[in-house]
Amino acid sequence: MAIEIARGSAPLSAGLSVAGSRAFVHSIGHGVNEYWMSLALAQADLAANAGEVPVGCVIVDAEGRAVGVAHNARETSADPTAHAEVIAIREAAGKLLGWRLEGATAYVTLEPCAMCAGALVLARVARVVYGCADPKSGAIDTMFGVGRDARLNHRFDVVSGVLADECALRLRRFFGTLRGAKLPTTTE
Amino acid sequence: MAIEIARGSAPLSAGLSVAGSRAFVHSIGHGVNEYWMSLALAQADLAANAGEVPVGCVIVDAEGRAVGVAHNARETSADPTAHAEVIAIREAAGKLLGWRLEGATAYVTLEPCAMCAGALVLARVARVVYGCADPKSGAIDTMFGVGRDARLNHRFDVVSGVLADECALRLRRFFGTLRGAKLPTTTE
Repeated sequence: MAIEIARGSAPLSAGLSVAGSRAFVHSIGHGVNEYWMSLALAQADLAANAGEVPVGCVIVDAEGRAVGVAHNARETSADPTAHAEVIAIREAAGKLLGWRLEGATAYVTLEPCAMCAGALVLARVARVVYGCADPKSGAIDTMFGVGRDARLNHRFDVVSGVLADECALRLRRFFGTLRGAKLPTTTE
Repeated sequence: MAIEIARGSAPLSAGLSVAGSRAFVHSIGHGVNEYWMSLALAQADLAANAGEVPVGCVIVDAEGRAVGVAHNARETSADPTAHAEVIAIREAAGKLLGWRLEGATAYVTLEPCAMCAGALVLARVARVVYGCADPKSGAIDTMFGVGRDARLNHRFDVVSGVLADECALRLRRFFGTLRGAKLPTTTE
């Protein structure tokens, strides 16, 4: 799946230039970060419908194309590494025919854990935009500083809090629904 | 691939009881950690032969069976997440039909990076045994304390320095060979 947005001379946000989709961007009352995050939120909804912790991720390449779109699938795939970010990274690398996602931005609804933040470093993404913080496992701002630590051979820019309420609402609703059945031990 | 070792009443190392393979273990002059690490080293050699940074990993389940055996394959698979540990975890989860590798031990020739250490936390492994430290990317002891940090909802025991010289030699030899062709920017 590759969503290509029209590009032109009217940059709405650093690193992305969106002219053709300006009307749409205005119609949702936000900017480019919120546009892509809303697609990541749609992925989170798909995860919840499948009984998975609702986390979604969209990776947008340097040309403004969505090259990785995924949601958390740990339970359905019985794979502890099947977080939204890792699946999206693998999809993007497959599309771009290489492991370097240079210039790419990852939009993810929840602050990435150590595995995912580490994978984003290894993939050389330029920017990570996330929704709500993860007080239990977040590895960029909450713990560790993965992606920010000056000792790493690659770091990325970070934007946090984009559509944070909507992102957190999905998680609260999911765990609220689950509470009667089982108590989660972690957010993802 | 599942290597099963005979089990009995003569523990040679914490967590694993090896009677039937005692003669073999003695023949390589080491204990159980060194036995499994030698298999991980064989994987590292396969990686080097394929032009990959020589890192190997073997995951042994609570019953003493090798359920995940892999080497780094980032270049050949064009996948930034294709480190030895992640591939071995996915293989082990597939074999055990679930994402929880409880009671398992991961043997890896190089100190895991943030992605891999995070994946080992998510997989709930009980123990990580590694060979040489990674001064650039190591995320367990060198940086971050992933797998050790008390704020995480799962931690694992760590043993380091097992066959460290042999593990480091592979990396030095690989990067020494490469030096004439290209200069690596990271160890993995």
